[in-house]
Amino acid sequence: MAPRHDLTADGDRAQVAAARRPLVPPPGGEPDGTGTGRDAAGEVLAGYLHRQAADLLRALRLHEETAGSAETAADAAGAVRSLGRAARRISGALHTYRPLLDAGWADHLAAELTWLSGVLSREYAYGTRLDRLLAALHRLSAPSDDDPAAGRPGAGAARAGALLERQLTLSRTRAHSAALQALGSARFHAVADAVAVLASEVPLDSGLADRPALPVLRPCAEHAHRRLVDAVDALPMGPGALAHTLTGAEDRYDGAWHRVRCLLRLVRYAQEVLGEESTPLGVAGRHLQRHRTAAAAADAAASAGRTPRIAPATAYALGVLHADQRHEVEAARLAFHRIWHPAP
Amino acid sequence: MAPRHDLTADGDRAQVAAARRPLVPPPGGEPDGTGTGRDAAGEVLAGYLHRQAADLLRALRLHEETAGSAETAADAAGAVRSLGRAARRISGALHTYRPLLDAGWADHLAAELTWLSGVLSREYAYGTRLDRLLAALHRLSAPSDDDPAAGRPGAGAARAGALLERQLTLSRTRAHSAALQALGSARFHAVADAVAVLASEVPLDSGLADRPALPVLRPCAEHAHRRLVDAVDALPMGPGALAHTLTGAEDRYDGAWHRVRCLLRLVRYAQEVLGEESTPLGVAGRHLQRHRTAAAAADAAASAGRTPRIAPATAYALGVLHADQRHEVEAARLAFHRIWHPAP
Repeated sequence: MAPRHDLTADGDRAQVAAARRPLVPPPGGEPDGTGTGRDAAGEVLAGYLHRQAADLLRALRLHEETAGSAETAADAAGAVRSLGRAARRISGALHTYRPLLDAGWADHLAAELTWLSGVLSREYAYGTRLDRLLAALHRLSAPSDDDPAAGRPGAGAARAGALLERQLTLSRTRAHSAALQALGSARFHAVADAVAVLASEVPLDSGLADRPALPVLRPCAEHAHRRLVDAVDALPMGPGALAHTLTGAEDRYDGAWHRVRCLLRLVRYAQEVLGEESTPLGVAGRHLQRHRTAAAAADAAASAGRTPRIAPATAYALGVLHADQRHEVEAARLAFHRIWHPAP
Repeated sequence: MAPRHDLTADGDRAQVAAARRPLVPPPGGEPDGTGTGRDAAGEVLAGYLHRQAADLLRALRLHEETAGSAETAADAAGAVRSLGRAARRISGALHTYRPLLDAGWADHLAAELTWLSGVLSREYAYGTRLDRLLAALHRLSAPSDDDPAAGRPGAGAARAGALLERQLTLSRTRAHSAALQALGSARFHAVADAVAVLASEVPLDSGLADRPALPVLRPCAEHAHRRLVDAVDALPMGPGALAHTLTGAEDRYDGAWHRVRCLLRLVRYAQEVLGEESTPLGVAGRHLQRHRTAAAAADAAASAGRTPRIAPATAYALGVLHADQRHEVEAARLAFHRIWHPAP
């Protein structure tokens, strides 16, 4: 596995040396073409929030038009993802640029949007988790190309796949109902109303909003970036691949990594407001996303392995699968570190 | 896992860039202090064979003095290893420097010594295999240092360890008896007699033996090195860690790697005759040794996992263990490639 990720890292390394540098303004302080240099801080922030709010409301309408019909199920699912995507961005911008806003209002709406995106993301997460596990089982039990005769997948792999499919499909269905319930709830309608307001006017607060954008917004983004750098520096050095795998303690480091993932996402949204996208952060973020999916997949394999009265061959295949996904976790951490601390 | 081996590889890389260069004589053609430059080819080869034959006979005497008593069991085991060590070296030198020798005699004795070292190595191999698997199980089920409360090793790990201990100890005991039987056999006594002759006189053949050492011996060593380089270049690119793990087809590449391991050993013995030791080849050889032990350990975990009527938790732990050892195999291949093809 390692070489595969080596390549990724090497490929990225060239462009990502900047990943952990603070977001200092470019020489002359002139940003890219978004004109954030000339506009007032409030206008820049409001413009971003307007766009995201419009995206959220559009996704909401699309979902209302497509939900509940088999033909348009894919569109409905896409709408739910767009809805969550906009919700996360609004929540992130409200959080990072809180000093420019009515703090109480910003905190409340940010929290509600976090709740919403959490509820909406679960169905999709269960789906990708199952896809990942079935793909891994396929890879683990694929006959080798140049000698298909060599070895046949044991019944274990097939049974393990069926077991995972049963368990994760059930969770996915529950998540689907929970999402629909949330979208029909009064709590959601209150959030939607607040976002509708956001689409037209943003309750800007304090004199900061009228001052030039960069001197006001950049320190907020810097603060978010600082929190990310601190969290990365505080990441515990893991005990190495597969240590503790059989104790259930292996994943006790995952939480710190998931937190880094969220902080990195906040920084990326903060940069979007400034019209500054960072490729390195995007690449690092994808490794953290892979980290999270693999860790969740390993958990799913482990809990499937604890199902009572399964055949030994099934349990054996789930053990191999669990180890395989924990190695994916380890590989994602390594790839992230290679991007974050590029070799000289 | 990868970073650990990165370190190894990086550490070695400096000194091993020479690993695959042909064994061209140093400038001036003057070798190191062994005087191979001045002596006749036959004397140099005979000197090496004398020393190894003496080692073998000494080990044989030590084994006769120590075998069969519990107090001296460790000495007896050490003697068996020394015996095999000398047998491999004599066999290798007879094979590589065959042109200087009575070919029929050399081929026969080399084959007999290969048989002998094979029989003698098995007991030790089963022992190291069990040690490796129990160490891995310990690592996989160790409570994490800074939070011993987090997770307890499941009964699966303990049961898996007991099962492996039972199965591999049985194999080891059988290998022990087979080794004792071999050492008492007429076939072995014939080999020992031939080696005893070798300790005093080597049946050198052809005029080559009287010519200066380097021009005669080096081409033989070059030939062995060329076969190694070709075998490494022909190594199949594996399908990546854990592919086919559940089909039993995963290990179909292992054979080519084990062959490289034997060819590399032949080159090292050929260099010993010339008084030229190569650190890089030694390091690469240790990675191939680790490759072989891990591959055999993975097989042992897999076959233990096929034991009828084991508990699912036991099978699960064996599946994790199997995957862990296949990753060790993959890591050893990577480490070997890093030494063989050092980064520029």
